Amino acid sequence: MAAMNRQIQLASYAVGPPKASDFTRVEEPVPRPERGQMLCRTIYLSLDPYMRGRMNPGPSYAKGVGLGEVMVGGTVSQVVESNLEGFHAGEIVLTANGWQDYALSDGDGVRKLDPAAAPISTAVGVLGMPGFTAYVGLLDHGRPKAGETVVVSAASGAVGAVVGQIAKIEGCRVVGIAGAREKCDYVTGELGFDACVSHREDDLPAALRAACPDGIDVYFENVGGKVFEAVLPLLNTFARVPVCGRIANYNLTEPPPGPDQVPRLMGLTLVRRITFRGFIIYDHREREPDFLRDVAAWIRDGRVRYREDVVDGLDRAVAAFQGLLRGENFGKLLVRVSDDPTR
Amino acid sequence: MAAMNRQIQLASYAVGPPKASDFTRVEEPVPRPERGQMLCRTIYLSLDPYMRGRMNPGPSYAKGVGLGEVMVGGTVSQVVESNLEGFHAGEIVLTANGWQDYALSDGDGVRKLDPAAAPISTAVGVLGMPGFTAYVGLLDHGRPKAGETVVVSAASGAVGAVVGQIAKIEGCRVVGIAGAREKCDYVTGELGFDACVSHREDDLPAALRAACPDGIDVYFENVGGKVFEAVLPLLNTFARVPVCGRIANYNLTEPPPGPDQVPRLMGLTLVRRITFRGFIIYDHREREPDFLRDVAAWIRDGRVRYREDVVDGLDRAVAAFQGLLRGENFGKLLVRVSDDPTR
Repeated sequence: MAAMNRQIQLASYAVGPPKASDFTRVEEPVPRPERGQMLCRTIYLSLDPYMRGRMNPGPSYAKGVGLGEVMVGGTVSQVVESNLEGFHAGEIVLTANGWQDYALSDGDGVRKLDPAAAPISTAVGVLGMPGFTAYVGLLDHGRPKAGETVVVSAASGAVGAVVGQIAKIEGCRVVGIAGAREKCDYVTGELGFDACVSHREDDLPAALRAACPDGIDVYFENVGGKVFEAVLPLLNTFARVPVCGRIANYNLTEPPPGPDQVPRLMGLTLVRRITFRGFIIYDHREREPDFLRDVAAWIRDGRVRYREDVVDGLDRAVAAFQGLLRGENFGKLLVRVSDDPTR
Repeated sequence: MAAMNRQIQLASYAVGPPKASDFTRVEEPVPRPERGQMLCRTIYLSLDPYMRGRMNPGPSYAKGVGLGEVMVGGTVSQVVESNLEGFHAGEIVLTANGWQDYALSDGDGVRKLDPAAAPISTAVGVLGMPGFTAYVGLLDHGRPKAGETVVVSAASGAVGAVVGQIAKIEGCRVVGIAGAREKCDYVTGELGFDACVSHREDDLPAALRAACPDGIDVYFENVGGKVFEAVLPLLNTFARVPVCGRIANYNLTEPPPGPDQVPRLMGLTLVRRITFRGFIIYDHREREPDFLRDVAAWIRDGRVRYREDVVDGLDRAVAAFQGLLRGENFGKLLVRVSDDPTR
């Protein structure tokens, strides 16, 4: 019997929080690579908040996943069989093969990984898209100066943890915002942030104000919602707000009730000369060599630490993704789809 | 009998649209300059939307006017009597003497004007703060590129008219938004904008969309409100929005009814990588020589035109200012407080 390839496909566009029934599991025979192709086996699948946007019918900044298509996602894979020049069976590669066991590749967008340089899982985490997002968003858009106060939401997450640690390296006072107490403890204890405020505080605005006695110069926006509202009045003159994500809003099915706070937001933008800038990492490919050089060095120095939340088995991907959107992961969320041969 | 100095003082903080009773007219004897002072007679008083913010009890980006204090404002004055080295009776100076006939000055922040170089009234208009605001806001914050579409609201106003004309010089497609039909005609006919849409259109979003077939790359924000709402969906990827003013909101006494559009605004900011940046001209003094050189040259070339709306007499300042906030002026609004000796 031929080996089978499990795929998780989009069955229905999501409305509000994705339901298990929005996904469907399909099995097909593992495909055979033709000339100019290689077959890759997925080791790690990265789960990231942006995937929620791909479950909407309209386009976001990228094309959505179509009904009956495999869910997209960054992956770390091993080459099983190669008819493609330059790639050989056994090599570990960074791919974007999505939520499935196996996939064919023509090598486009594929990068070889050196298991001796760093754990291969980091290629979709601290040394991958989330870390790169943190690096560019903070340094190029946030432009922190030593002595300034940097606040980052989703502070124990794949992006936020790197943002805060780089801000510390830049000499800033760094305040995280996270949910669970243990996440806050990790952020201050392990990652070295100066403070961390739980968004579950009864009076979040007051708690954040107390943690930011000199106001906020850079707010790295990952979440939106009530966290954004608590940050807003604390923004200093000339504050910068890189807008990276809005996870609290991704499942909104309609705008929240009034009043309309846009006039207040824009009035504050004017009076305090604030810059809000949306950015997406795919626009910044030219900074990737700088990122890889700097963050790899910082990891070796121990100045950047990371934590992975690894879920075993593709069949648990849907539940893990649902948990991600509820903030239940603790660190960079990965699915181990098959054994990591480098560990 | 001593000559008298009329002053218009703030009598009450404004709530909503300023009322005539929020101001009070006071007369006092014209003061005498001591050693190190000069006495200036106001020729032109500039009326500008920012003054509404100074009528609030709290600080805006600058200290508000206190009750019983003279209303602030940029002025073009003539030196009447000088005990101040370097200034002589008869000279014309740019001052900030506010809503009154006479004022003493120690020369701080005063700049001499050359009546042979340009009409002296332009020192508070196209060659003054409004023109400078347009120059910096468009070029430094909007960063228009040839071929892009630039939209500016309050397009026939002191700032908007200069924004649009500089954008034309930069090779952009320029679309104005104004109120009255005659203003729109002026913007396209006299100022050379490619199109102008009236915000009184029944379907403003559709009219603006029709005028911007390639979307909007730079929106120079002067007004807020429904104009901002019409602009928002048309903003292109990487659009820049210099936030200069929000005149439609200045008289708001409470946030408008819901739903809350902040999540939609910030979601769009992210997906389209938009930059919103508030700015205030006083932060950009270093650009003033560039501004004066460039815009003076463009006026001489005929590439920048301007229109002044001159009201005669200090006693008409309050009504003129109320009209400004309703969009009733047509061009840069000035009060001729006393005869212009250079005309």
